[in-house]
Formats: sequence, structure tokens, C-alpha cells
Amino acid sequence: MIEPSQCVINTATLGFQAPLPEVIDAVARTGFGWITPWRREVEGHDVAALARRVRDAGLRVNGYCRSTYIPSDDPAQFRANVEANRTALRDAAALGADHFVMVVGSHRDLEMARAQVIEATGLLLAEAKTLGVKIALEPLHPVYAAERSCLTLMSEALRWCNAAEGQTAEPKLGVCIDAYHVWWDPELSSSIASIGAEHRIFAFHVCDWLVPTQDVLNDRGMMGDGVIDLKSLWAAVQKAGFHGSVETEIFSAQNWWKRPMDETLRVVAQRLKTSL
Amino acid sequence: MIEPSQCVINTATLGFQAPLPEVIDAVARTGFGWITPWRREVEGHDVAALARRVRDAGLRVNGYCRSTYIPSDDPAQFRANVEANRTALRDAAALGADHFVMVVGSHRDLEMARAQVIEATGLLLAEAKTLGVKIALEPLHPVYAAERSCLTLMSEALRWCNAAEGQTAEPKLGVCIDAYHVWWDPELSSSIASIGAEHRIFAFHVCDWLVPTQDVLNDRGMMGDGVIDLKSLWAAVQKAGFHGSVETEIFSAQNWWKRPMDETLRVVAQRLKTSL
Repeated sequence: MIEPSQCVINTATLGFQAPLPEVIDAVARTGFGWITPWRREVEGHDVAALARRVRDAGLRVNGYCRSTYIPSDDPAQFRANVEANRTALRDAAALGADHFVMVVGSHRDLEMARAQVIEATGLLLAEAKTLGVKIALEPLHPVYAAERSCLTLMSEALRWCNAAEGQTAEPKLGVCIDAYHVWWDPELSSSIASIGAEHRIFAFHVCDWLVPTQDVLNDRGMMGDGVIDLKSLWAAVQKAGFHGSVETEIFSAQNWWKRPMDETLRVVAQRLKTSL
Repeated sequence: MIEPSQCVINTATLGFQAPLPEVIDAVARTGFGWITPWRREVEGHDVAALARRVRDAGLRVNGYCRSTYIPSDDPAQFRANVEANRTALRDAAALGADHFVMVVGSHRDLEMARAQVIEATGLLLAEAKTLGVKIALEPLHPVYAAERSCLTLMSEALRWCNAAEGQTAEPKLGVCIDAYHVWWDPELSSSIASIGAEHRIFAFHVCDWLVPTQDVLNDRGMMGDGVIDLKSLWAAVQKAGFHGSVETEIFSAQNWWKRPMDETLRVVAQRLKTSL
């Protein structure tokens, strides 16, 4: 039984249908304790004022979504991508976010893409440590490997973390486990179990995989409406030492994004109680 | 430089727009040496006559597609699925096919599904050995994990093969490596390299991953039109000891399936020369 006050709403769940202050109020009104905003809602606004607005509503900021894609054939573009993420990291710190979520991008030369992401992550990790913000690498479902993420397997994300930071009791580089992206992976359990005492799980995102799925990007389901065994996954994540809050992130252009924010939030609160 | 005579046409590439005898003639006329038919073209027909027709056209049968999905909550249905595959194996033998392709099916309880597939594969392997036909397990892209295949990673397919058959110089259980399904996997190279002298690669299927992909089932691309590094993959497959023929299998409802068979086959022949 998970109470909304222990849970995070990722604002993508509400389809960006209102400015962030209104979203903050809706999330607080429905009893949730945490929020994860997106850069599109923050950049170009007074970040300090938004941070106050979150605090005044009684909320805390969990993650900040998400990185500019890293890989590029053009060295100047690669550097610009790193710099854009450095700026976003500073906003994450100003918001008081626990972590900055990295969706890393891709390239048809996957090996080059992976090497660039590893290099960029090293550069950003140094910045993150200075700022006191953590970085969460999010492996995406392999259906996005061509366009959105050369990082697909949880085992690889953990290898990258260990290579960049070594064994440490208080890591600043970790992973975001999004059920939608990793539920199918036969090595997921062993990957999560391998994390142990290092506490490298910084975020746990939930939604569901609908059958059939009309659109792999924006037809994700409400928890309980699909095939993902969220109870088992949540138990495994907790067993691996995760003490953070469950974050709901649902991309649903044809269903949940079309509903009033309060309705979607009420259903999320109910389903978190029954599906995890 | 790959000559068509060394290559296989999987009949799905032509969209099942004509009865198998006409497809056989088209494949032979364009200079290909091998064919992989589907059960929908064979069952209900005189299998011995079709086998003669293939031979008379100067072709050989590479694979036979594909298995009835295995997993079911209902024990009777599970047994019926195994029996359906036993019948298909006999047809594969009657056709003189090198191997029977297994796309294994799935279930929302992935662990149960995997256990059932492993059990069924063991039963079918005994039948296959008697018949002199090999079985090729085909891991599918994880986008199909909910509905079509609980088997997604090449590493897992190889583990299943080794567990079922042990080390052997002439395995009867192996894998079908389809570029579309596995190109994204960061562990693919090491999985393929691990095969070594056991010769467990029974088939190598090619097409391409289009960007953007309109439909993950039936919008696969002609070799060279997408992002898959087929040259590197083909080199790795050969290095692992594969001496079989490259098989083209393109599901393309809106493009190639709408073209005359001879046109599609000519383009396949050209692209095999330039893309691998």
C-alpha cells in the first residue's frame, strides 16, 4: 500500500496542458508529495521562483527531465550538447532536485554514440558533484535505439556507472529504472540484485505496457492496464536498497493527456495503491 | 560481394501475393539459390509436390517459418501447441528444409512463458533429431516481448541451446540471427563471438531498421535504407563460423509488398551486393 504523499508525479503524465505553477498546485491538491518537472516547463522562467512555488505547495522536487541528446558527428555540436546539459544541471540544483535524468541520445554508429555518452557523462558528473545534484542514467527500451538512446540494457548502465565512479557508498551517478523500458529484460533481476549496497538506483518510474500498443512513444498505459508485473519489480527495487519514491510517468497522447489533470492524478493515486 | 545464388529469399519478403509455386518460380528466375517458405503457403497443400517444385526450379529450402506460439495458461493448449509444432517439423523434413524457425510466443508471466518454451523446445528437439531437421530459435526485438516472444536476447537464446543440448560439434538446436531484432544489443558482438566452434548459427536474416519506423511489425526496410550496420554484423557472423546463406526477410506492408515480386527481388539482389 503506497500513499500518494510518498510518491512522485512526473509532469509528463499530465501532458503539459498547463503552466508549471498550475501543475504544481494540482499535484499538491491531490496529495502527492513530490514532483519531477521537465525543462520545457522551467527554461525561460524564473527558476528560483518556481523552486519557491514547489516548496510553498508543500512539494519536493525528485528528478529534473531530461538531458539534451549527446552524440553528434560534429565535435562542436557534441560540446554544445554537453554545455546544454551543464546548464540544465544548474537548473536542477536551483530547483533542489535530487537528480537530473539523462536520456542519452543515439547515432547510427552505436559504438561512437556510446563512447561519446560515456565521455560526456564523465564531464557532467564532475559538474554535478560540485552542484550537489545526482545524475540518473535512464536506459530506454530498445525500440528507441535508433533515435533516442544508445543505452538500452540496465546491465550496461550499471557498468557505465561503475566505470565512471568506482565503488562508493554515496554515488552521484546512478540509474533511473523505468518499468516501461526494462520490464522485458531477462537479465533485469540479476542486474538489479547486483547493485546491492551501492544504492545506485536514483529513480523508479512506473506506467504500463498496453496490449496492443498503438504507438510506442505516446501510448503508454496507466498502472494496472497492461502486462508489466509492477509488484515484483517494485519488490526487487526495494530489496536492492532503494528508499526513494515511486514516480509515475505516463506518455499517453490519446487517453490520459486528454483528461483533466485532477482526474488523471486521482486515478494514479488509486492505481499506485493496487498495482504495486 | 554476395551473389544471389548464395542467398535465400524468405517468402514473407514478397507479401504472400501469389501461391507458393509462383513464388518459387519468381525466386528462381531472379537467380536466387534458396527459399524459406511459410506454413501458410504449405499447409493444406501437397508437401511432397511442393518439395519437388522447389527442386525442379533449381532451388533449395533453407528454413521453414515458423512455430506455433508455445506458452499458455491451459495445459491442454500448451500440449496442442507442441503437437502443432511437431507436425510442422515433419513438413519441414518433407520439404528438405535445413531448419525450422521458432518464434516462441509470450505471456504476461514471462518466467512461466520462458519455462514452457524451454520444456517445449526439449520435446521438439528430440523429434527434430529423428527427422534430421535442425531447430533455430529466433530471439525477437523486445518491442514484441508482450505478444510474440519472451525470448529477446541472443545471449539467452544461446544459454537455452547450451542447456538443452550441451557442447556438441554438430548441434541440432541453434539460433536464427535476424538483424532487425538484435542490431541494438550492446552484448550482441560478445554473444556471437562466444559461439565459436559449436556452429550454433543456423540462419542469418537481413532487412533494415527505418528511421522513422511507422509500424514496428510491417514497416521494415530494404537493406541499405535504414541504420543497421549490416557489414559489421555479417562479418561477425562469418567470423563465428557461419557458412550458410544470407536470408532476406522484409515485412513491408506499405512498400515492398505492394510491388511486383520481380521488382522486389531485383532490388534485394542489388542491395545484398552493396550492403553486406
